[in-house]
Amino acid sequence: MTSYTNIKEFLLGRRLDSGEAAHQSLSKPVGLAVFASDALSSTAYATEEILLILSMAVSGGALMWQTDGTILGLSWPVAIAIAILLFIVTISYRQTIFAYPNGGGAYIVARDNLGETVAQVAGAALLTDYILTVAVSISSGTAQIISAFPELNQFRVPMAVVVIAIITFLNLRGVKESGRIFAVPTYFFVGMMFFTLIVGFIRHLTGTLPQVQGVEVLEHQVLEPLGLFLILRAFSSGCTALTGIEAISNGITAFKEPRSRNAATTLMWMSSILIVLFLGITFLSNQIHAIPSHDETVISQLGRTVFGNGSIFYYLVLAGTALILLLAANTSFADFPRLAALQAGDGFLPRQLTYRGGRLVFSWGILVLAVFASILVILADARTSALIPLYAVGVFLSFTISQVGMVKHMNLVGKLKPGETHDGLETTIHYDPRWRLKQVISAIGAVCTFIVMIVFAVTKFTSGAWFVVVLIPALVFFFFRIHHHYKEVARALSLRYTPVDTERRHVETLILVDKVHAETARLVNFAKSLNHPWHAIHIGINPEYAQRVNREWKERFGDEAELVVIPSPFRLLAEPLEEYIESRQAADPTGYVHVIMGHLAMDTYWEQALHSNSAFLFNLVLSRLDRVVVTTVPYQIHHRADGKGYETGEYQKVEIPVATGFQPTEPNRLAWVHKQDAPAHTADAPEASEPDNQT
Amino acid sequence: MTSYTNIKEFLLGRRLDSGEAAHQSLSKPVGLAVFASDALSSTAYATEEILLILSMAVSGGALMWQTDGTILGLSWPVAIAIAILLFIVTISYRQTIFAYPNGGGAYIVARDNLGETVAQVAGAALLTDYILTVAVSISSGTAQIISAFPELNQFRVPMAVVVIAIITFLNLRGVKESGRIFAVPTYFFVGMMFFTLIVGFIRHLTGTLPQVQGVEVLEHQVLEPLGLFLILRAFSSGCTALTGIEAISNGITAFKEPRSRNAATTLMWMSSILIVLFLGITFLSNQIHAIPSHDETVISQLGRTVFGNGSIFYYLVLAGTALILLLAANTSFADFPRLAALQAGDGFLPRQLTYRGGRLVFSWGILVLAVFASILVILADARTSALIPLYAVGVFLSFTISQVGMVKHMNLVGKLKPGETHDGLETTIHYDPRWRLKQVISAIGAVCTFIVMIVFAVTKFTSGAWFVVVLIPALVFFFFRIHHHYKEVARALSLRYTPVDTERRHVETLILVDKVHAETARLVNFAKSLNHPWHAIHIGINPEYAQRVNREWKERFGDEAELVVIPSPFRLLAEPLEEYIESRQAADPTGYVHVIMGHLAMDTYWEQALHSNSAFLFNLVLSRLDRVVVTTVPYQIHHRADGKGYETGEYQKVEIPVATGFQPTEPNRLAWVHKQDAPAHTADAPEASEPDNQT
Repeated sequence: MTSYTNIKEFLLGRRLDSGEAAHQSLSKPVGLAVFASDALSSTAYATEEILLILSMAVSGGALMWQTDGTILGLSWPVAIAIAILLFIVTISYRQTIFAYPNGGGAYIVARDNLGETVAQVAGAALLTDYILTVAVSISSGTAQIISAFPELNQFRVPMAVVVIAIITFLNLRGVKESGRIFAVPTYFFVGMMFFTLIVGFIRHLTGTLPQVQGVEVLEHQVLEPLGLFLILRAFSSGCTALTGIEAISNGITAFKEPRSRNAATTLMWMSSILIVLFLGITFLSNQIHAIPSHDETVISQLGRTVFGNGSIFYYLVLAGTALILLLAANTSFADFPRLAALQAGDGFLPRQLTYRGGRLVFSWGILVLAVFASILVILADARTSALIPLYAVGVFLSFTISQVGMVKHMNLVGKLKPGETHDGLETTIHYDPRWRLKQVISAIGAVCTFIVMIVFAVTKFTSGAWFVVVLIPALVFFFFRIHHHYKEVARALSLRYTPVDTERRHVETLILVDKVHAETARLVNFAKSLNHPWHAIHIGINPEYAQRVNREWKERFGDEAELVVIPSPFRLLAEPLEEYIESRQAADPTGYVHVIMGHLAMDTYWEQALHSNSAFLFNLVLSRLDRVVVTTVPYQIHHRADGKGYETGEYQKVEIPVATGFQPTEPNRLAWVHKQDAPAHTADAPEASEPDNQT
Repeated sequence: MTSYTNIKEFLLGRRLDSGEAAHQSLSKPVGLAVFASDALSSTAYATEEILLILSMAVSGGALMWQTDGTILGLSWPVAIAIAILLFIVTISYRQTIFAYPNGGGAYIVARDNLGETVAQVAGAALLTDYILTVAVSISSGTAQIISAFPELNQFRVPMAVVVIAIITFLNLRGVKESGRIFAVPTYFFVGMMFFTLIVGFIRHLTGTLPQVQGVEVLEHQVLEPLGLFLILRAFSSGCTALTGIEAISNGITAFKEPRSRNAATTLMWMSSILIVLFLGITFLSNQIHAIPSHDETVISQLGRTVFGNGSIFYYLVLAGTALILLLAANTSFADFPRLAALQAGDGFLPRQLTYRGGRLVFSWGILVLAVFASILVILADARTSALIPLYAVGVFLSFTISQVGMVKHMNLVGKLKPGETHDGLETTIHYDPRWRLKQVISAIGAVCTFIVMIVFAVTKFTSGAWFVVVLIPALVFFFFRIHHHYKEVARALSLRYTPVDTERRHVETLILVDKVHAETARLVNFAKSLNHPWHAIHIGINPEYAQRVNREWKERFGDEAELVVIPSPFRLLAEPLEEYIESRQAADPTGYVHVIMGHLAMDTYWEQALHSNSAFLFNLVLSRLDRVVVTTVPYQIHHRADGKGYETGEYQKVEIPVATGFQPTEPNRLAWVHKQDAPAHTADAPEASEPDNQT
């Protein structure tokens, strides 16, 4: 067959030895780029979300932000509060990294401390959120591109799917390669944003920072009075800045050794950059009086106000933002397959998700993520606004579960005395004098993220969050069904209860004859070589043809064994065979029925398609019968080297003239001859005149 | 497995016995409806096509039809000429029906009289034209519906594909059923058209037939001076009225006995109705001064002028026309599969096209037609004007070939003396005193249809006919490639050159061990029962896991045979196995290597999907190796009747307590126990703790 392996190697690169796994791990800078892009991208819209909610405030019937400029300025204290929560959650996840150095994030923490059910809930929440992250960030990034080129709007959905395909392909090429490629745009974004903040801050200090001009005001549908609930909503919306923090703790195994330490350091860098960018953007947005608008993002307003309309730096900022939004998807491609492999390893997802492909990545996991994200993008018509309400409920649920789990974990730590250790399931737990402090931090974080989750679920329920609220329990149900299946199959197969069956049993052999030709001769030869009682059967779909087969069999192989024609008035193949086999089994219920069939194996796919390939069909159907064993005897048909027709296997047919001259109807007594031994080919024999009907 | 057979029977009806074929044949009235709908539908646009061409005539710089009313009246003599040609071609095909009573039309005539190559050209022309007929008629019928409901325009393509699917489904249910269903709209159309013509003619005779009002004039892009070429073009365009005449001669086998006589009679009815409708429509169109227009069809103009705007009959005429256009597709569904089966039977198309399905129809042929027609509709965006230029070149090519073939056939007849007969390939040829006359008729018809074909190919070349001109030779090339393949395979397989290999050969047996559990026990048992030298192999993708398997094997089956672990550093399954097998073959090149593997067979598809099913993969890959035989030993896992977990096959595992109480780690000495003999199930055994990894 034309080499499928060669095509794969060409597209994805040479297959990697399992021993090369260490070389495929990431350094801290590359790891930051891979795992932090999701978190960093949320700075592009977190500030905007806060301002959006605050601008809904009304007082005395009038929109407050228009009458009283200070309302939007509330975004600053809100941002400070968010930054504090961000810090808390970071500290909590840092503990997780050290406590669970094999990765897995909220899933492992829950599994280890809160039980299987909570772990599956965490897994469901994280997996759906990874898929949503890809869908949202790709849609959002595509939307940015379309803002620049509005005529591309009709191709929105195909563009998004193509981007997903590209990221999928790069990820299939391997962690190291995709990491390097994705590092460039990530650092470009970070660099541009820092540059923007620095220039903006300098201008602010020198009093040369203007206010933003020419922004079209957003018309709100729903308005709310200023109050605690509104502040809470603004806080919650701004908490989208936290999405992506868990990424590193899930993907520790991608880092070079010492893995935990490198991952923890990368986490601190990520959070620091995140806090600085977030607070900086919020501060400057307040200084330029940025206004939430449907037509222009806050980042855009910031960029053009700091650098001036039409400045090259303004466009670079926009480009960097678009890129980071697209790259946020890549973090999911790093984490989803690892988590899926973990859950599959525990038996809660199909086992195929644990397989590593040629480049040492979890190929199945990557492809599953790509497919589901693409479906979601197509269904949502690549509109970010349709997807955002589903987003973030799952993330904050997993934050809550993870921190609650760490709280419980710290109890274990607290029970130790100095110098004592405890061998946990995942790692050795050491004594830690500050365990109480860490526990309190995690507890505060858990309460805050829980509140944020509830606020999201309630306020966005009707716009889409209901779907996630329904989906997560449904997924957990399926996970347990799968787990139950694997568990029960293992029990059924366990040798603990299986008697080891030492008796030899009777084997009755049947060979399936379709046409009487060279392949049949091989089936006969194999059956004879096996040396068990055997006979031949033919399924008589066409009665006239069956008679002919019967006759030809008698001529050629009549001495060897009998041919039984099984009638098939409904032109079925498998059912008559099943019935016949069952009748033989009735005669001898403890023995095996060994069905042998031929299969013509061609050199190329198109030639193979021209033949009935019924061996695979029979294999599938007969696999339902107990103690029925199916054997496929392939008969290879190769292209002849001189291009004139076909020959079989490594044996060449030679016509060796007998004493009285060439008699084409007399069987050649010299059997298989190795090609290297064959005499020079004699003149082409007369053309076969047997029409093909059923091969 | 959930029954695929049951679903098929529910959708398509109970499976038909091959002996019921006679009952599935058609009576003449139903046969007319099935096979004539294509021909009858062309009356809906044939007249219009003539008027369209004539209205392009210019003289002295002015459009002639506007200055001189008689130019459009030229359509009448042109229509007469077309009717004469129609009659000639009918006579020719009537001869074909009697000469070739097994159907096949132009293909058989060519094969029998003009050689294999011409036959394949005819086959290619007919097959492409059947696909085009479906695409054109469905698009045209859909366009009629959209004229009535313009808001449906955006769903044009999905609507067309859905209609194709419905017709496909009805055809899969069987010839008789689909025929009955389609008869109603066909006769409705015929009835309405006759009614229209009668009423119109009466009004004409009584002088109460007005001229048509309110038609928006068609703007021509290309104009031509009045001349012979223009008349020729008008004649050719009008000849689309002939498309569909060959349908009955292709589908003779669908009729009840005596088939030829019934088919011939039906053909005469069809042509008579066709001529009357065509001439009637043309005549009345001239009387009402119908004008070719993009916005309204000539039939519509006729209907509302004869019956009056808003008359119910006017709408019924439109409805009938839309229906017959959709039904024209059905004729192709009757003929394409038969022709494809014929060509496949000769070895020029994949053999699968000869298979009859459960309802005695050529299921593969029907599905192939549906798929290609749908692709064409999607590519052409369901616009009839894009497809029409491709249309009819193939039809007139096949008309020409068929009639030339009949001319040659008549030479054979002419050589006979009265009372003599000649056994032809298809039928017995009798003496016919009027053979010379019939030959001349066919010759005239051949020349005319050839001219029409050339005119079509030239005038519509750039608008799409080039595709057909390129496609038909390409198809013929592929047909011969396929034929060459089947011929050469038959030669390679022919027992004429194959020595019958009577020696028994050595069989080395290998069992593939993945995990050590109950299925392994069965593989061991089968290998022992076969009684040839055997050992076990494990492909070591994961070195730690391989060690464990090795250990477990030694514990359980160490006495039986050795386990060889094959290293697989690149995590591949098939390649290491291949290499190992080749090394064993090197030791004994003339023997068989018998590879035995297990396959867990579940009850439902979703459960099956949770397992690796690698047996099928191995079967596929190992089929390339000569003298390597692959056996699948299935191990069924069934749902237990009480719903608690699984059990295997017809044997139940029973734990029979030994004298000193239940010892779960001691193998039970009573092996397989038939379920009916099993003692009442004891308490559930402790849960298996072996994690599943690779099953």
